[in-house]
Amino acid sequence: MTEFLTLIPPADARKVLFSHLDFSGIESETVSVLQSLNRVSAEDIFALHALPNFTRSSVDGYAVKASDTYGATESMPAYIKVAGEVEMGTRPTLRAESGFALLIHTGGMLPVGADAVVMVEYVQQTGDGEVEVSRPVAVGENIIQVGEDVKEGDLILAKGSRIRPSEIGGLVALGISTLRVARRVAVGIISTGDEVVPLGAEIQPGKVRDVNSYTLSALVESKGAFARLYGVVPDRAEDLASVARHALEECEVVLITAGSSASVRDMTADVINQLGNPGVLVHGINTKPGKPTILGICEGKAVIGLPGNPVSALVNGLLFVVPLIEKLSLQTIDLPLPSIRATLNVNLASQAGREDWQPVRLVQKESIWYAEPVFGKSNLIFTLSSADGLVCIPANATGLSAGEQVDVYPF
Amino acid sequence: MTEFLTLIPPADARKVLFSHLDFSGIESETVSVLQSLNRVSAEDIFALHALPNFTRSSVDGYAVKASDTYGATESMPAYIKVAGEVEMGTRPTLRAESGFALLIHTGGMLPVGADAVVMVEYVQQTGDGEVEVSRPVAVGENIIQVGEDVKEGDLILAKGSRIRPSEIGGLVALGISTLRVARRVAVGIISTGDEVVPLGAEIQPGKVRDVNSYTLSALVESKGAFARLYGVVPDRAEDLASVARHALEECEVVLITAGSSASVRDMTADVINQLGNPGVLVHGINTKPGKPTILGICEGKAVIGLPGNPVSALVNGLLFVVPLIEKLSLQTIDLPLPSIRATLNVNLASQAGREDWQPVRLVQKESIWYAEPVFGKSNLIFTLSSADGLVCIPANATGLSAGEQVDVYPF
Repeated sequence: MTEFLTLIPPADARKVLFSHLDFSGIESETVSVLQSLNRVSAEDIFALHALPNFTRSSVDGYAVKASDTYGATESMPAYIKVAGEVEMGTRPTLRAESGFALLIHTGGMLPVGADAVVMVEYVQQTGDGEVEVSRPVAVGENIIQVGEDVKEGDLILAKGSRIRPSEIGGLVALGISTLRVARRVAVGIISTGDEVVPLGAEIQPGKVRDVNSYTLSALVESKGAFARLYGVVPDRAEDLASVARHALEECEVVLITAGSSASVRDMTADVINQLGNPGVLVHGINTKPGKPTILGICEGKAVIGLPGNPVSALVNGLLFVVPLIEKLSLQTIDLPLPSIRATLNVNLASQAGREDWQPVRLVQKESIWYAEPVFGKSNLIFTLSSADGLVCIPANATGLSAGEQVDVYPF
Repeated sequence: MTEFLTLIPPADARKVLFSHLDFSGIESETVSVLQSLNRVSAEDIFALHALPNFTRSSVDGYAVKASDTYGATESMPAYIKVAGEVEMGTRPTLRAESGFALLIHTGGMLPVGADAVVMVEYVQQTGDGEVEVSRPVAVGENIIQVGEDVKEGDLILAKGSRIRPSEIGGLVALGISTLRVARRVAVGIISTGDEVVPLGAEIQPGKVRDVNSYTLSALVESKGAFARLYGVVPDRAEDLASVARHALEECEVVLITAGSSASVRDMTADVINQLGNPGVLVHGINTKPGKPTILGICEGKAVIGLPGNPVSALVNGLLFVVPLIEKLSLQTIDLPLPSIRATLNVNLASQAGREDWQPVRLVQKESIWYAEPVFGKSNLIFTLSSADGLVCIPANATGLSAGEQVDVYPF
């Protein structure tokens, strides 16, 4: 009855899973740029025109021919006639001939003839239709040249980029109103367990409410995927196989949160092997929580067996399901996870060779942030909901010491 | 024509703004727990019952009376009769009298009479309806007691908490299906500038497309607020006042991205002063980009004038609008922003006394992450869309040196 798992490190497990998936055939769809926040571009987008597409002033001042200001000083200013003003948003009708300047505002279009702008700070009006310029400008000074932001044909958004507010800004600046993005990934979620009842059902002695369907659903939706819930399935292989087969038809990824007893875990692995080839790739991860996690591929789709324990299910969702959704959304940029630096307030022991993810609370004392582990023998969901993030104890460490700086990863 | 602003540090500016707002009257609404991700709880929620609400086994094994195992060793095992099995999800009908054990699975309900569980690893079946126990267990061993996760009446979700997947899990574990959350904040966005044309309009020489409406809208929506766009208003005080008054009626916050010339900036401040008391609180922030930012309160609502430059508008949106939305969403937890640690690859100069926010790209070389500043004289939107985050050069520094460790804040 004892189970023997060959445990492999989480990073290796992810590699095995990803190496069996084909990301090239992922479908895309056209969306409005204004609806594209957090989606991932499915195409390379190039600038249709330069930006700016006219020469602009970068300051408030006077558009001049630079040579008219050469040698100007406070004691020996240059005198230049003001020919008029550049109206914002229009092509100037006046030219800046030698000896003439035009008043111009930040963002105004440089008039023909001018090749620089003198800042208002260095200009005095004489009251005579003339200005005194007390400092010379070089050709091109205080000017934004055509294409200085983006040149025509520049790659402005690479396939695989996640769209942030700044990308939306870049696209609309170029007048692009739609783009192709990766289709949202559908993730099917199945809870199992004879003792598990769905939300809303009455709870009898010995029963517990389904938690994993809802935490995993929130997790995948927060990462831009669709969650499809397939409810709670009793601990019978034929029932699980039938529901999982249905989920596999409708979704790109299927998650099965297994009951936590050894026999039921084996059932999940058996069902994954039945669903299609190659079946189970990894059974057992060298991490805590999450040892019994199963990664499988059935006919080109990922099927992941997560532990039934709500903390394990959510932590392993972060370790495996989130990166999988990112890959299946075509996201190519693979930056480190952002974290909050804090000082560990107690010693944290760990087993060498195993990667531990420890929930911690962040507590500020005298302007220093401390990471305070949240322990929960029962490993129920409140261990996580009272924590602000997770600290990783790497496999090559036997623990972390009080006073050490740690990275706290919010979840 | 030169402008003189009294510049104050961003943190002080935020304090001034917040001190003039009344967060106690913020409206709340009832939502389904399943729709509550990223909302902020508007009520303290307490546990209606203990969790677990029955004594459970935390392992696969045999439920026993601990005293039956005392003194057991491998060479001198204790022999206990197996009276039956605890079915998952049910109240056991059999009792564990002294001398009798019941097979039990992880999460199973402890039978009356038992006070500990022996793990299967330390049990051998004799084939005779008996088991050999090779190790003693203490009372309470391998058992999760009633209320060990949460006791009846415990505070399980404090008012002001942001709801993550783990909070959803905690609520559904207790059968809670709805809760009161802060209403989504409505943020009105007004772009100004004679040279600015809305998305979709044809672009004439001297004109530029509106970028700020869309970047700010994406930013506030990404933080859970509603964005209402009021379009592009020309540089005329009466037009701006009329649109801003309308926006102020419909929204809790109004953002005005001003044209970038000094005269137009003054216009925004004048309009904010006209809209209601006390009007402009802060005009000029000691930061780069963002010096001309204006913070005002008109009849209890925040009105913020952001620079017209798209990078300034977005960076100052992060510095002022995001914390404001969090406050107006009742969020009380104020953790440090998560960041990615990287090594700065060049020297970054800064003016002492000013807080700089520098866009950087993250580049990995031989497994080290470097922060590489993205410079853009024009400060147009592509400076940001080619960056992975921002590095802060604090006011008390005159710069950062190549090789220094910096925190990169993704945006």
